[in-house]
Amino acid sequence: MQFKFKIQEVAKANNSRLILALDFPFQNPVSGQELISKADAILEQVYPYICAVKINNHLVLPLGLFDGVKAFVEKIHAKELLAIMDAKVNDIGNTNQVIADYFYAAGFDAIIANPFIGWEDGLKPLFETSRRQGKGVILLTYMSHKGAAEGYGQMVIDPTTGLSVPQYMMFARKNVVYEADGAVVGATVPEKISEIHKILGEKVPIYSPGVGAQGGSAEAAIKAGTAYLIVGREIVSAENPAEVARKLWNLIKNV
Amino acid sequence: MQFKFKIQEVAKANNSRLILALDFPFQNPVSGQELISKADAILEQVYPYICAVKINNHLVLPLGLFDGVKAFVEKIHAKELLAIMDAKVNDIGNTNQVIADYFYAAGFDAIIANPFIGWEDGLKPLFETSRRQGKGVILLTYMSHKGAAEGYGQMVIDPTTGLSVPQYMMFARKNVVYEADGAVVGATVPEKISEIHKILGEKVPIYSPGVGAQGGSAEAAIKAGTAYLIVGREIVSAENPAEVARKLWNLIKNV
Repeated sequence: MQFKFKIQEVAKANNSRLILALDFPFQNPVSGQELISKADAILEQVYPYICAVKINNHLVLPLGLFDGVKAFVEKIHAKELLAIMDAKVNDIGNTNQVIADYFYAAGFDAIIANPFIGWEDGLKPLFETSRRQGKGVILLTYMSHKGAAEGYGQMVIDPTTGLSVPQYMMFARKNVVYEADGAVVGATVPEKISEIHKILGEKVPIYSPGVGAQGGSAEAAIKAGTAYLIVGREIVSAENPAEVARKLWNLIKNV
Repeated sequence: MQFKFKIQEVAKANNSRLILALDFPFQNPVSGQELISKADAILEQVYPYICAVKINNHLVLPLGLFDGVKAFVEKIHAKELLAIMDAKVNDIGNTNQVIADYFYAAGFDAIIANPFIGWEDGLKPLFETSRRQGKGVILLTYMSHKGAAEGYGQMVIDPTTGLSVPQYMMFARKNVVYEADGAVVGATVPEKISEIHKILGEKVPIYSPGVGAQGGSAEAAIKAGTAYLIVGREIVSAENPAEVARKLWNLIKNV
């Protein structure tokens, strides 16, 4: 089953479209045991309110992929949740494939990549290895930070028409052509979520980070077309992560 | 001392502008010991012919950053060479900083990033943490693979003039403004190396991957303005890595 359908099923089962981003601050010296304990504790508290966990280098670099993260991905799966690796893959094809294959060997269900690398010898080998293994590819379409306007928001010439269009609209169209499992669009730009949602329709679900610490509104994002909300610091740094997750879960259900 | 001057000194001392990219194929199940032995053996054979080693996820994911890569970076330094992390950083500022801080804590001297993320809350925190720690930031400007034409080669509207220019020329100008320690331009596109070199001058040295396996010519790249040649598979997969490295070293010296 394609990842976009898998997550739909989990979201239905848990009645949740909330994804936990397990991003911890930099820690030096690294204490892997402390990080794993924190990650375990948060997962244990919030798992009833989420459908997936997004992991990135905040955890992979200090723990190691096979030494620490692989076992944690097993815990995520034991809770019947999915694990997304936020690698923001943007290398040449051969490297993209090696990166993805390692993350899949560690159990991840989907990977995030940057469509800026192009298809030939870029995204193509990544999609191929992912499809072969029943894994998902989610593409960055408009990020949640201020500088996103410079790249994702720039005007580019569409080579097929010669007309100038926003970069994110070019990416949105490619998401549909490539049959991506998802498009990342920042919750900080709800008007762009609407625009992109018009292109993607129900074919490619929108994933939105940027709620809370970055200033995005969960409600505005969902009304604009976001399918899954990715929340990190607001939950992870909360005194009571379960309380914050439960509130967001409730809010999303009722939008 | 800024990284671009550090590598200049090492290059002078070793009379070499060759960078070894230690990219091994995907291995499942992972045998860290085997990978480290291979990496050690290649370093031991080629160190007289290089000025730096570029490491990427081919090594970080299977070995772990602090379990295996950190000790290997120490071996690189013991040979009086520099270590570059090819992370192709392209996240929001907070994450970029966490990623860079972990790689620097493991000893890396410089990191590669994608300028597509923009400055505010993107590259800025990465440059700040790097400068504070005396580390270098090298920016992707035109990659070596075919799909690069789609992103790096696209025409974009320059917001300051309203005119359309190639994306890589926009990136080249930003390299100068940001005082990047280097610009990555594929050896597969020597005509673009020339164009970009005209913008960068001696301010930002060009790093070129893509020789050998990807079809680029070392000679053409250097003639066009490449300062450092990055070679991976051609050396790593050779029966006699020292022989291939020595030949490239000799060729570069005599262009």
